[in-house]
Amino acid sequence: MNLSFRELAQLYQNTLLQDVIPFWQQHAVDETYGGYFSCLDQDGVVYDTDKFVWLQNRQLWTFSLLYNQVEPRSDWLAVAKAGAEFLAHHGRDPDGNWYFALTRDGQPLVQPYSVFSDCFAAMAFSQYARASGESWAKDIAQQAYETVLRRQDNPKGKYSKAYPGTRPMKSLAGPMILANLSLEMDWLLERDRLNTILDQTVQTVMTDFRDPATGLMYENVAPDGSHIDSFDGRLLNPGHGIEAMWFIMDIAQRRQQEPLIYQAVDTMLAILDFAWDREFGGLYYFLDAQGHPPDKLEWDQKLWWVHLETLVALTMGYRLTGRQLCWDWYQKVHDYTWSHFADSGREWFGYLNRRGEVLLPLKGGKWKGCFHVPRAMYLCWREFERMG
Amino acid sequence: MNLSFRELAQLYQNTLLQDVIPFWQQHAVDETYGGYFSCLDQDGVVYDTDKFVWLQNRQLWTFSLLYNQVEPRSDWLAVAKAGAEFLAHHGRDPDGNWYFALTRDGQPLVQPYSVFSDCFAAMAFSQYARASGESWAKDIAQQAYETVLRRQDNPKGKYSKAYPGTRPMKSLAGPMILANLSLEMDWLLERDRLNTILDQTVQTVMTDFRDPATGLMYENVAPDGSHIDSFDGRLLNPGHGIEAMWFIMDIAQRRQQEPLIYQAVDTMLAILDFAWDREFGGLYYFLDAQGHPPDKLEWDQKLWWVHLETLVALTMGYRLTGRQLCWDWYQKVHDYTWSHFADSGREWFGYLNRRGEVLLPLKGGKWKGCFHVPRAMYLCWREFERMG
Repeated sequence: MNLSFRELAQLYQNTLLQDVIPFWQQHAVDETYGGYFSCLDQDGVVYDTDKFVWLQNRQLWTFSLLYNQVEPRSDWLAVAKAGAEFLAHHGRDPDGNWYFALTRDGQPLVQPYSVFSDCFAAMAFSQYARASGESWAKDIAQQAYETVLRRQDNPKGKYSKAYPGTRPMKSLAGPMILANLSLEMDWLLERDRLNTILDQTVQTVMTDFRDPATGLMYENVAPDGSHIDSFDGRLLNPGHGIEAMWFIMDIAQRRQQEPLIYQAVDTMLAILDFAWDREFGGLYYFLDAQGHPPDKLEWDQKLWWVHLETLVALTMGYRLTGRQLCWDWYQKVHDYTWSHFADSGREWFGYLNRRGEVLLPLKGGKWKGCFHVPRAMYLCWREFERMG
Repeated sequence: MNLSFRELAQLYQNTLLQDVIPFWQQHAVDETYGGYFSCLDQDGVVYDTDKFVWLQNRQLWTFSLLYNQVEPRSDWLAVAKAGAEFLAHHGRDPDGNWYFALTRDGQPLVQPYSVFSDCFAAMAFSQYARASGESWAKDIAQQAYETVLRRQDNPKGKYSKAYPGTRPMKSLAGPMILANLSLEMDWLLERDRLNTILDQTVQTVMTDFRDPATGLMYENVAPDGSHIDSFDGRLLNPGHGIEAMWFIMDIAQRRQQEPLIYQAVDTMLAILDFAWDREFGGLYYFLDAQGHPPDKLEWDQKLWWVHLETLVALTMGYRLTGRQLCWDWYQKVHDYTWSHFADSGREWFGYLNRRGEVLLPLKGGKWKGCFHVPRAMYLCWREFERMG
């Protein structure tokens, strides 16, 4: 890589606005029923019409963010509206929990077993409420946020397969997403409440899930933060840990907590050092902290979101600390990511094998939609703009 | 491959009795608590002590089968007994449903969400009852079999995430395992009842799950056997389909239903033709019937059980029909399987990437135990012995 900050800002901005967003705008909107198609092949052709609620809410969030932060374009608001109205009508069960999947026309397919559906709904409707000014959208965002808080100690509820009491465990995903979500919703939350939640999530993430000996983030720990010697207890999800670190940096910079910024950067660097594939490049998807075989067969694959969240974390970490190591890593991850995932003029590839060859030629599917690529592009663009 | 039937019989027998069984006998038995360690690395060192009930029951089944069918060795019976007593004490909830996982000392870890835990318990305790003559073992087998029948229309019960009614679907695994299980338990079942169950399962497998146009087995279909255009509805699991076909051949040969044998062989050959990786060799793990990207990231991996079940199906198919195509395929799959999965003097590798390189160096884990390798070795040995 041999680009100035200004050129990098331009690269991210152009890719976002000329390649990625037009791809989703052109191919994803369901003109018949509302909502979005997320299963798009390399050319944008729809290969499955089911509507996965994580991805519905994430595309709603993305187009609302663009409207709010980039330019109030009516066509972007129209895309957001198509999702918001579909989701408001069909997305929730009678108790307000967000289903996991719907049919194309909005019938519930998969029960509300995942609290992350509610998280993404809260994020999405909060952004959409800002964009549209609709008070019903604000109500939906607030209701979803309360659901997240209510379910946070038992996120899977009756769908949990764990036998109660034998081996209690908590997951990084919970506090991590709450940190990001609470910042997203700061305009809707009372200041004291927001501060309490941020204090708790930072404390939990950096004390319970961060291993002080290695500086690595664990995916699952005992309620007191100790390690459990089991498949789940040894699991590292490097992309998740790195993403959590930029959430923490984001909180820390708003609160001017410089030591916390440095701790988050150190943690990110420790994860990068541990999880970088020295033979083929790229970051592993899953690792076992003790080096045992992980139970996830996809452990060695290279995923788009892992690399994009890493670019965000490195850019933010470099801007906040100026550490050379952040910049060295940025260039290395940039070169890998742009040469392996980018697909000129379109949304990026998502799934590569260990060697970096395309494993699935899809642009969107059951888990990949209009979210990580545009969010990372937007954030990197803004970070480099501030540095340029 | 250039081996006579007699040499092949010898190869399978020797590998079973000199390499594979000693590996499990030496490394898997938990001398302290009973039951088995399934998580063994390449050298047989235990890397995780949780006890996954599928695999506990499967090792119990294997050692009981050896005792019943190969030689009544007291050391094999002792291995079986160590599992049977542990499982009888710790394996079931108060309603008799089999848990999915236990701690090393037998506390329940994962709820009885999988009816296949009950299936493998029925198989295991049926074999163990024959080996040991213990009437309590027979009672456990019969109780588990009744659980399987009771749960077959709603196998996941309260753990199902599907929203009821929107898109009803049934899975091949249910009737397929019932076919095999019922043959295993024929000595405990009334003849009329056995015949009714076999009629129903053969009918369901060959009419509802087999696609007449392509001859392929679908993993999930609508209750009337029609196809559903969704990720699950398009899913092909070639190893599963091929394994189901030898179960069907096994039923058909006992009942002297020659047309059914030929139909099962045709189906097996159609699956092989569709699922063989023409670039790197081996059989894919998952495919989409319409060629869309599957939602399973491990789709292109080469798994031990897929290839071993295929060797059984081809051997049986060749013995029953004498078709040259079965023999041609046998040699091709034999060469791939023996050159990629075998590990001289030990249990075989389980997980290879698409190129056939070892992906996980484990010999046992959360899903791989003492079952597919020894069962296939035993069956191929016996098949070649009959042909030699």
